[in-house]
Amino acid sequence: MNKMNNIEVIINNKRYTLRGYESEEYLQKVASYINNKHQEFKKQDFYKLLDTEMKGILMQINLVDDYFKIRSNVKEIEDENESKSTEIFELKHELISVQTKLEAAKKEIEVLKKELNDSQKKIIRLETEQTRLERKREEG
Amino acid sequence: MNKMNNIEVIINNKRYTLRGYESEEYLQKVASYINNKHQEFKKQDFYKLLDTEMKGILMQINLVDDYFKIRSNVKEIEDENESKSTEIFELKHELISVQTKLEAAKKEIEVLKKELNDSQKKIIRLETEQTRLERKREEG
Repeated sequence: MNKMNNIEVIINNKRYTLRGYESEEYLQKVASYINNKHQEFKKQDFYKLLDTEMKGILMQINLVDDYFKIRSNVKEIEDENESKSTEIFELKHELISVQTKLEAAKKEIEVLKKELNDSQKKIIRLETEQTRLERKREEG
Repeated sequence: MNKMNNIEVIINNKRYTLRGYESEEYLQKVASYINNKHQEFKKQDFYKLLDTEMKGILMQINLVDDYFKIRSNVKEIEDENESKSTEIFELKHELISVQTKLEAAKKEIEVLKKELNDSQKKIIRLETEQTRLERKREEG
């Protein structure tokens, strides 16, 4: 288990001491994300007119907006993921079906080659026999 | 384009008027998300001891934490998505390869069947001829 840490962060130019199980690195990353948003906000004229409370609410709404946007993005890629899983399932199914047909075709080729080979031997035998009979007839 | 709206939301029991392009429905969803967090926080003893500013900072950190967690989750499902795309690509490739082999096998079967058929006809012809020759020989 991680131990509880006291970590100092600077958010919007003020120092805060946070107590929690999160790592220093993680909390600094969180603070830096919030500070970047403050920077963005400060570039906008309307923001300067707001009181501290309203600025805080605006920040919260903006953070939830980021969260909701990425959450709907997650939903999208999860749906995409699901449709890919279905496609994989169907492709595997089709692959097995085609492989089975290929195996059957290979066996049929083996059987046909054997039959053809037998027939060709029989033809040679018959042709030899015929030559023999014709020669006999000529002699006779 | 959407028009600018003035929308009233209640966050942590206070009324705020927000001006923006987001729909009323969306902003109420955002407010409700923040209010649920306030409810959660209020259940914890340490929270009651914090001043308003610190409560605001804690809320912001918590919202960024939600965002970061889901963002790392996005990375994970995107990776999963990518590996599924690779699998689909490979399966399609394999499927085409097996289908090509199956087509070749089917053609080979056709050729073999034709050759076998020709051979069998030749055998019948040779056997008929042989019977004829033997009968002639007996007669002769």
